[in-house]
Amino acid sequence: MNTSATSDERGGSDPAAWIVGAGDGTGGAIARRFARGGFVTCATRRNADKLAPLVDAIAAAGGRAHAIGCDARKEDEVIATVERIEREIGPIEVFVFNVGANVPCSILDETSRKYMKIWEMACLGGFLTAREVAKRMVARGRGTMLFTGATASLRGAANFAAFAGAKHALRALAQSMARELGPRGIHVAHVIVDGAIDTAFIRDNMPAIYAKKDEGGILDPDHIAENYWHLHNQPRDAWTFELDLRPWIEKW
Amino acid sequence: MNTSATSDERGGSDPAAWIVGAGDGTGGAIARRFARGGFVTCATRRNADKLAPLVDAIAAAGGRAHAIGCDARKEDEVIATVERIEREIGPIEVFVFNVGANVPCSILDETSRKYMKIWEMACLGGFLTAREVAKRMVARGRGTMLFTGATASLRGAANFAAFAGAKHALRALAQSMARELGPRGIHVAHVIVDGAIDTAFIRDNMPAIYAKKDEGGILDPDHIAENYWHLHNQPRDAWTFELDLRPWIEKW
Amino acid sequence: MNTSATSDERGGSDPAAWIVGAGDGTGGAIARRFARGGFVTCATRRNADKLAPLVDAIAAAGGRAHAIGCDARKEDEVIATVERIEREIGPIEVFVFNVGANVPCSILDETSRKYMKIWEMACLGGFLTAREVAKRMVARGRGTMLFTGATASLRGAANFAAFAGAKHALRALAQSMARELGPRGIHVAHVIVDGAIDTAFIRDNMPAIYAKKDEGGILDPDHIAENYWHLHNQPRDAWTFELDLRPWIEKW
Amino acid sequence: MNTSATSDERGGSDPAAWIVGAGDGTGGAIARRFARGGFVTCATRRNADKLAPLVDAIAAAGGRAHAIGCDARKEDEVIATVERIEREIGPIEVFVFNVGANVPCSILDETSRKYMKIWEMACLGGFLTAREVAKRMVARGRGTMLFTGATASLRGAANFAAFAGAKHALRALAQSMARELGPRGIHVAHVIVDGAIDTAFIRDNMPAIYAKKDEGGILDPDHIAENYWHLHNQPRDAWTFELDLRPWIEKW
Repeated sequence: MNTSATSDERGGSDPAAWIVGAGDGTGGAIARRFARGGFVTCATRRNADKLAPLVDAIAAAGGRAHAIGCDARKEDEVIATVERIEREIGPIEVFVFNVGANVPCSILDETSRKYMKIWEMACLGGFLTAREVAKRMVARGRGTMLFTGATASLRGAANFAAFAGAKHALRALAQSMARELGPRGIHVAHVIVDGAIDTAFIRDNMPAIYAKKDEGGILDPDHIAENYWHLHNQPRDAWTFELDLRPWIEKW
Repeated sequence: MNTSATSDERGGSDPAAWIVGAGDGTGGAIARRFARGGFVTCATRRNADKLAPLVDAIAAAGGRAHAIGCDARKEDEVIATVERIEREIGPIEVFVFNVGANVPCSILDETSRKYMKIWEMACLGGFLTAREVAKRMVARGRGTMLFTGATASLRGAANFAAFAGAKHALRALAQSMARELGPRGIHVAHVIVDGAIDTAFIRDNMPAIYAKKDEGGILDPDHIAENYWHLHNQPRDAWTFELDLRPWIEKW
Repeated sequence: MNTSATSDERGGSDPAAWIVGAGDGTGGAIARRFARGGFVTCATRRNADKLAPLVDAIAAAGGRAHAIGCDARKEDEVIATVERIEREIGPIEVFVFNVGANVPCSILDETSRKYMKIWEMACLGGFLTAREVAKRMVARGRGTMLFTGATASLRGAANFAAFAGAKHALRALAQSMARELGPRGIHVAHVIVDGAIDTAFIRDNMPAIYAKKDEGGILDPDHIAENYWHLHNQPRDAWTFELDLRPWIEKW
Repeated sequence: MNTSATSDERGGSDPAAWIVGAGDGTGGAIARRFARGGFVTCATRRNADKLAPLVDAIAAAGGRAHAIGCDARKEDEVIATVERIEREIGPIEVFVFNVGANVPCSILDETSRKYMKIWEMACLGGFLTAREVAKRMVARGRGTMLFTGATASLRGAANFAAFAGAKHALRALAQSMARELGPRGIHVAHVIVDGAIDTAFIRDNMPAIYAKKDEGGILDPDHIAENYWHLHNQPRDAWTFELDLRPWIEKW
C-alpha cells in the first residue's frame, strides 16, 4: 500500500472515498477531486504500482491518498480490501465504481471468453465492491455510491453487445440499489458519460477525435469529476439518480 | 417594473438571468441563487405585483432583481419583454422556464378548455419564451436554457393526461433545442423534479406530505436551485442535458 | 355521408371501427383491414369528399364503410360525430387516431401559429376524439383505442420541436388512458412507426427513399394495418401498450 | 433425443424452430404454436426427459417436435446442439430464448454465486445460443430471433439487482443484434412480459394472484405465444423490435 498519509497522522477517523477503477483518466480525476475536498482517498486498480503517480500528485497537492491493489472481480480480495480500508484508514463515505471495458465486436465474432470478461470487469466487479460497501454504509445510515455509465448504458448499438450488456446490467444494479438503499440513507447515482474523454488512449489512438480538444469537443476528466463532487454534496431532500455528460458538439 | 437596481447603476452591461415562472417556490429560489451569483435577475410571472417580496428579498441580500409582468402564452408580450430586457437590463445569459400547471383529472371528465390551458401554460409559453431567447443567444454563441420538468415528463399516469401531455411536449422541446443549439454554443438542460416541493401550497393542502419536511422528505427549493446553478456552470465539454431530483425516501 | 352500406341493410347493431385520419396511406389501410374483419368502418378526415375512393374500394371488396367529414380539432364537430356514429351506425368498438402533421423547422424560425397548429392536429384532436369515444366504451366496459406514433414520439431531434412535442404529448395521452381505462376494459395501444411509409407523398417528394420500396425499405400501409388488427384481437390477459414498426434496413 | 417425427419422415428440409427454455409455461406454448404453424420444433431445456409431455402433446396434435437436452450456458453443448439441429433436423428459421431466473433478494444479502448464476442463465445462455444461430441465419440471409423480456428488462426495482441486471443485459444483446443483423435479413425482437403468467408455479405459490385467472388477470401462455407467432410473420418492411404484454388489470 503506497500512501500519502499514514493512519496515525490523520488519527484514523476521517471519512474515506474509495475509487475503484482509478486509472489515468476519469477515475484519477475523481480521486483528486475528493482528496481536495478533504477525503482520504483510496485509489484502486488491479496493479497498485501504477497508482503511484496519482497518489504522489495528490500528496503533492496537500491531500491524502492510498494506493490499494485489488481485483474487483475477486470476492475475497474485495472483502479484504473493504475490511482493511474501514479498519486502517476510515469509514467509506464515498464509493465510486469507474471500471470500463469497451471492446467493440460483431456479434458473429464475439467470443464467450471476451463477452464474459467484459461483464465481469464492468458489472460483476461493481456488484461485489458495491455490496461490500453498502453493508457498511447501511449500518451507519449514510454514504454516497457513484457509478460511471456510458452511452451503452441506455442503447445497444451494433457491435456493442458485450459492452452494452455489461453497462445495462451495471445501470440496473445502480437503480435497484438506489431504490432499496435510498430510504436507508444511501445516495446512489449513475453518471452517463456520452463522448470521448481526454485520455492518453484517445490521444494516441483517435487523433481525429483528440483534435477536438481545444474547442471543448472531448470531455475533461476534471470536469467529469466536478459532477461526482456535486452529486455527493446534494442534500438528501434533492438527490439525483442519473445525469448525462457530453461535449457541446457531440451528436446524440 | 419593480427593480432592485436601475440600468444606470450597473452600467447596462452585466448579464441577465430571466426566470419565467418565478413564484414562491422553485422559481423564486432560482432567482435568488442567480442573483447571489452576480446575475441581474429578471423575475417574471403574469402579475408583476406578486413579485415584490422576491425582488425586495434579493435586493436586501445585496443582489439585483427586476420584476417583470408577462404572460408567457402571449407572443407579443413575450417578444416585447425579451426586447426590453436585452435593451434596458442586459444580455440574457441564463433562461429558466419554470411554469407548472398540474390539475389531475379523469380523462372522461377532462374539459377541452382545461386540457388546452394546461398545455398553453406548461408548454406553449415555454416555446415562445425559449424561442425568443434562443434567437439572442445564438447571435452571441452562448447562453444557458433550463427547463423544469416533472415525473409527468416521462410517465403518463392515470388521471394525468393533460399535465403529462404538456410536460412530455416541453421535454421534447428542450431535447430538440439541445440537439440543435448545443453545437451553436447554447447549453439546454431539463431538470426532472420528482417529489413534493416545500411550498405554501403543499403546506396548506397536503399536511401528510408536508409532515415529512423535517426529515428531508420534500424538496427544498433552494436545493433545487443549487442544481440549476451547477448546470449553468458546467464547462461546455461536459454538459448535462437531464438530471432528476427527488427526496431520499421518495418511491419511484 | 357517403356510405357503402345503409344502417337498415346491416340492422344497426354491428360494431363500428372509427378511423380518424383516414388518408391515402396508413389510415386508409387500417380502414380496409377492419372492414375486411367485419367492422362497419367509419373513415374520417376533414374533407369527406376525399374519402370516396376509400369507401368505394371497401364496398367493392364486400365491406361496409362510411365517409364522415369531421375536423377533430373542433369539439362540437367531434361530439356530434360520435353521437351520430353511435346512433346511426353502431357502437364504436375500435377507435384509431392516425393524424400526423410533420413539418420540420429550426426552433429559431418556428412560428407560434405552426407550432400550435401541429399540436392541435396531432394531439388536441386525439384528445377530443379519444375522450368522446372513451365515454361510450367505458359505459360498455369494452373497446380498443389505437394511436399512431412516430420516432418523434420518443425523441426530440433537432428541427423537430413542434412535431416531437405533439407526438410526445399524444403518447402521454395514450399512456395515461391505458393506465386509467385498462382496468375498465378498454385496450389502449400506441404504435411507433419508425420509417418512411409507401405513400404518394414519399413517391413524389423523396425519390431516393421511395427507391427502396422494392427491397422492403419503406413501410407498406397494409403491413402496418395488420399490426393494428393484431392489437385489437389480443385477449385481455395479454394486451400490448406499445410496439414499434420499422423496415429491416432502417437505421435506429 | 425424443422426437415426434424422424428426419426421414419429413425429408430433412423443413425449417426448424428452436425454443431454448421450453418449460411448462411460455416456452412450451411457443413450441406448440410454431409446431402448429408447420415448423419442426426443437424444444430445449437442460433435462430433455422433462420435455417428453410437450413433445408428445405436439405429436398428438399432428405436429413435429424434438426434445433436445442442452445447457445453454455451456458453449460446447450449444455449438454441438446447433450443429446437430442444422444437420439432422433442418435449418433454424426461428430461434426463441425464453430462460428466466428470477429470485429476488436484498442487495445486502445477494451472494456472488447467485448473482453470477442468474446472469449466466438469463443472459450468457442467450448470448451463446443466439450467436451460434445468428451465424447460420446470416449465411442464409433470413431468420427470426425472439427474446423473452420482463418488467425487469426496463426497471431495476429494489431487491431485483441480479435479475434486472441479467434482463437488462439480455435486452442490450437483443437490441445490438437487431441493429447489426436487421440489415442482413434477420428479424430480432424482444417481448416484455409484464405480469404473472398462468403456470404451475404461480398456481402453487401465489394463490392470490392465481385467483385472478378467471377474469384474465394473469397471462395465458398461449396468448403470449400468439404474439411470437405474429412477430415471426411480420414482413420485413414492418418489423417490430419490442412489444410489451400485460393483463388488463395489471398496475404499471
